[in-house]
Amino acid sequence: MPLPLCYIFNGLSDSQLDRLTTITGETRIQKGEWLYHEGQEAKDLYVLKEGAVELVMKVEGDLEIPIAILREPGGCFGASALIPPHAYSLSARSARDSTLLVIKRIDLQKLMSDDRELGCTIISNLAQHLLSRLKETREELKIHFKTLLKSMHS
Amino acid sequence: MPLPLCYIFNGLSDSQLDRLTTITGETRIQKGEWLYHEGQEAKDLYVLKEGAVELVMKVEGDLEIPIAILREPGGCFGASALIPPHAYSLSARSARDSTLLVIKRIDLQKLMSDDRELGCTIISNLAQHLLSRLKETREELKIHFKTLLKSMHS
Repeated sequence: MPLPLCYIFNGLSDSQLDRLTTITGETRIQKGEWLYHEGQEAKDLYVLKEGAVELVMKVEGDLEIPIAILREPGGCFGASALIPPHAYSLSARSARDSTLLVIKRIDLQKLMSDDRELGCTIISNLAQHLLSRLKETREELKIHFKTLLKSMHS
Repeated sequence: MPLPLCYIFNGLSDSQLDRLTTITGETRIQKGEWLYHEGQEAKDLYVLKEGAVELVMKVEGDLEIPIAILREPGGCFGASALIPPHAYSLSARSARDSTLLVIKRIDLQKLMSDDRELGCTIISNLAQHLLSRLKETREELKIHFKTLLKSMHS
């Protein structure tokens, strides 16, 4: 089972990808089912194989802010599993009946420590992704700030 | 000149820190002076030795959102230098007359590729820091969202 392309695996060699495949499982999830909630211990990294998954931030009660919706095979999420304190930073819910690849954190951590080059490549990809998400989130803050200013002046 | 403790150098050995010291320079900057602006090519990583530095996000005209103020020796900034696309993600201005340690990106990149363990440690520290900043920034978004909701209901 070849892994669909996920940013986190960019730059890995074929043999490194093969080793990843050996620790990759598969699961199905129905529309509306939660995979995990913000703050929970992050035990698994997920890659979307088929379907769609929403990442949301809970505000209070039933209120939630949509952060991203993954529809393309290879979209991956739950990457907080790879960084201390190993807690999910968002909540993930299936937006359609979906098939997911699942990599257990403990298996991936072992692979990353056995093959330091692989570990280093994955963490670099993740750092790049996090910086880009941070920039996007700051841009959203900027938009809220401008809206607030406008409402004060109107 | 020993490097003041910066999160980015956590876990490095004494000999690795010694090698870092050999590529570290020092500069002084006066209160109010800009070190760099958001979007500029990130050529240097900075560590605060003495003084204070503000990190801000420009909104429009003279308007800016304060993101952080570094006052403790060892506070470091400009770490976007280490991640593609190597562009500063915020603007930095001296809040007091300050002394800074400066590490050129090209020197640090060479050190990180010559000593992959050092490179891997630095990138892991950075990823952890970015995830924590991302969470903080999302919490701020949440606050803005709640304020907006309240104002709609009042």
